[in-house]
Amino acid sequence: MPKLDLEAIPQINLTGYPPVHADKVQGRWYRRLAPATGIVDFGASHVTLKPGAWSSQRHWHEGEDELVVMIAGEAVLVDDHGRHSMRPGDVAVFPKNDGNGHVLINESGADCVFVAIGRPSATDCHYPDIDMHLDGATNAFRRKDGSAF
Amino acid sequence: MPKLDLEAIPQINLTGYPPVHADKVQGRWYRRLAPATGIVDFGASHVTLKPGAWSSQRHWHEGEDELVVMIAGEAVLVDDHGRHSMRPGDVAVFPKNDGNGHVLINESGADCVFVAIGRPSATDCHYPDIDMHLDGATNAFRRKDGSAF
Repeated sequence: MPKLDLEAIPQINLTGYPPVHADKVQGRWYRRLAPATGIVDFGASHVTLKPGAWSSQRHWHEGEDELVVMIAGEAVLVDDHGRHSMRPGDVAVFPKNDGNGHVLINESGADCVFVAIGRPSATDCHYPDIDMHLDGATNAFRRKDGSAF
Repeated sequence: MPKLDLEAIPQINLTGYPPVHADKVQGRWYRRLAPATGIVDFGASHVTLKPGAWSSQRHWHEGEDELVVMIAGEAVLVDDHGRHSMRPGDVAVFPKNDGNGHVLINESGADCVFVAIGRPSATDCHYPDIDMHLDGATNAFRRKDGSAF
């Protein structure tokens, strides 16, 4: 059925981050819409951020565009240009390789919900605020000096 | 800036449909987010349907996945399985080549708004309810017998 029964799609809060950097996303619950529906042209996640949760560590991708559509609640988009309130109906676009690290943070007292679109990460991802780097070739998180966690 | 100033992006109601099939989308106003932001991995349109407007003629693509996120107002999703109300926060996914023609129709008295994601059409598109077909190789609309409009 084209209209999704979102409640029927499993909601997970898994992360591949090493434990030292995983605390921020413990309250990030998401449904992967592409595997649930069979689409392959792009990925899509229906994300709920509990109060205090971050969408990710602040990051930018060398090779993947991203787009976010806010559905409910309020988040703060933090990037190199400052803080920007994101409310239902707001849209943000993160062009690949722009060097502008971004993250959505739920600083409110209620859940916020958005849909995030993007292809699976297959290139390096940069984390300007923490000592972590995603190597696109191996899809492994490393410290910035290349050492393993 | 990642957060889009949607009001600053031109809103258009152009269609490539032949005039005989274009009336349904006269009240469809959209902003193309990919050219406005430089993303290339997928296309994205911020669409407002005026009361009575259709998102398109009912159709399905052989080679492009599509996804819709409702932001405001209400639309009726019509497909082979019937009619489904789409309200803010609802998500619909249209997998390529599923043979299930779909359209969003604004039957309400107020505008409705959604974001639609998909790659540019490069394959045949089928319109089950009208005598029209999109040839992917030439990107031209033809009647189903192949004749030109």
